[in-house]
Amino acid sequence: MLKLEDYIRTIPDHPKPGIMFRDITPLLASRVAFNVAIDKMVSGVTYEGLDAVAGIDARGFIFGAAVASALGLGFIPVRKKGKLPGKIISEDYDLEYGKDSLEVSVDDVEAGQRVMLIDDLIATGGTALAALKLLRRCEVEVVSAAFVVDLPDLGGADKLKAAGCPVSVLIGYAGH
Amino acid sequence: MLKLEDYIRTIPDHPKPGIMFRDITPLLASRVAFNVAIDKMVSGVTYEGLDAVAGIDARGFIFGAAVASALGLGFIPVRKKGKLPGKIISEDYDLEYGKDSLEVSVDDVEAGQRVMLIDDLIATGGTALAALKLLRRCEVEVVSAAFVVDLPDLGGADKLKAAGCPVSVLIGYAGH
Repeated sequence: MLKLEDYIRTIPDHPKPGIMFRDITPLLASRVAFNVAIDKMVSGVTYEGLDAVAGIDARGFIFGAAVASALGLGFIPVRKKGKLPGKIISEDYDLEYGKDSLEVSVDDVEAGQRVMLIDDLIATGGTALAALKLLRRCEVEVVSAAFVVDLPDLGGADKLKAAGCPVSVLIGYAGH
Repeated sequence: MLKLEDYIRTIPDHPKPGIMFRDITPLLASRVAFNVAIDKMVSGVTYEGLDAVAGIDARGFIFGAAVASALGLGFIPVRKKGKLPGKIISEDYDLEYGKDSLEVSVDDVEAGQRVMLIDDLIATGGTALAALKLLRRCEVEVVSAAFVVDLPDLGGADKLKAAGCPVSVLIGYAGH
């Protein structure tokens, strides 16, 4: 049986000592594994009235756009700082290796939209929580979040759930 | 009749005076326009034996991954410098507003693979040509390239064609 975790490359001590980096590039490269991952994300959808998928810059664009297209939805790019040219709102967050901020183009998000949030990986949840806050500041209803890889010991998925956002994941690495 | 160009926002003098920035965010936000764009890219495919789609970081991930998924193909991320953790090859290029480099994870690309290259926009073609060179250095056959927006006066599409790569575009802005 195909196991998606067989398509994740673990790179020890990257980007710094003690970090086990989970690299999804082999999963993307495999036509079967990539499409199984997308199908699992699509079939995990529990809410019919979705309007759009929000994907987090940049690997979340890969899974988010494929899921949006499979479901016939729109796509909201949640971008790194300075990438969106129009009127934006911004949210700072701490990440495992430093600090950054995310931005959303406010003219391209409508109040009341029902959105699914997607990224490749959730660790401490800093990025996903910032994305959730941004979308909620736009009065978007984030009905769920989905990730390919979860590092549950870092607590990100629990933080999202505690913030009222249901979470689904394809692969979990306990004791990351 | 739906015109994709109605979903492109033009931002004058961004990111610097004299540049008319073509913003695809409204096209992504529209479920109809986004899915028409993906369908047009998919139906424009002229070669049956494709193995993968290569998308350029980061907006090319959106269209590239959706097309890859629609066709049941793998996806090769052509990334900005420093983003891929494994064994990479790199190619420098000039862009309109500076200099940068692109990278491919060599362990996730196979010699002889037939690949379609996708990005959101082609202007001078610096980025796309660098991606083409990278893939060819991996002995990948780039059978075609597709872009949502073309600025033909900047000559990028012509450069790709001159390099032996057929090009298709959804929207052209002559006299950009």
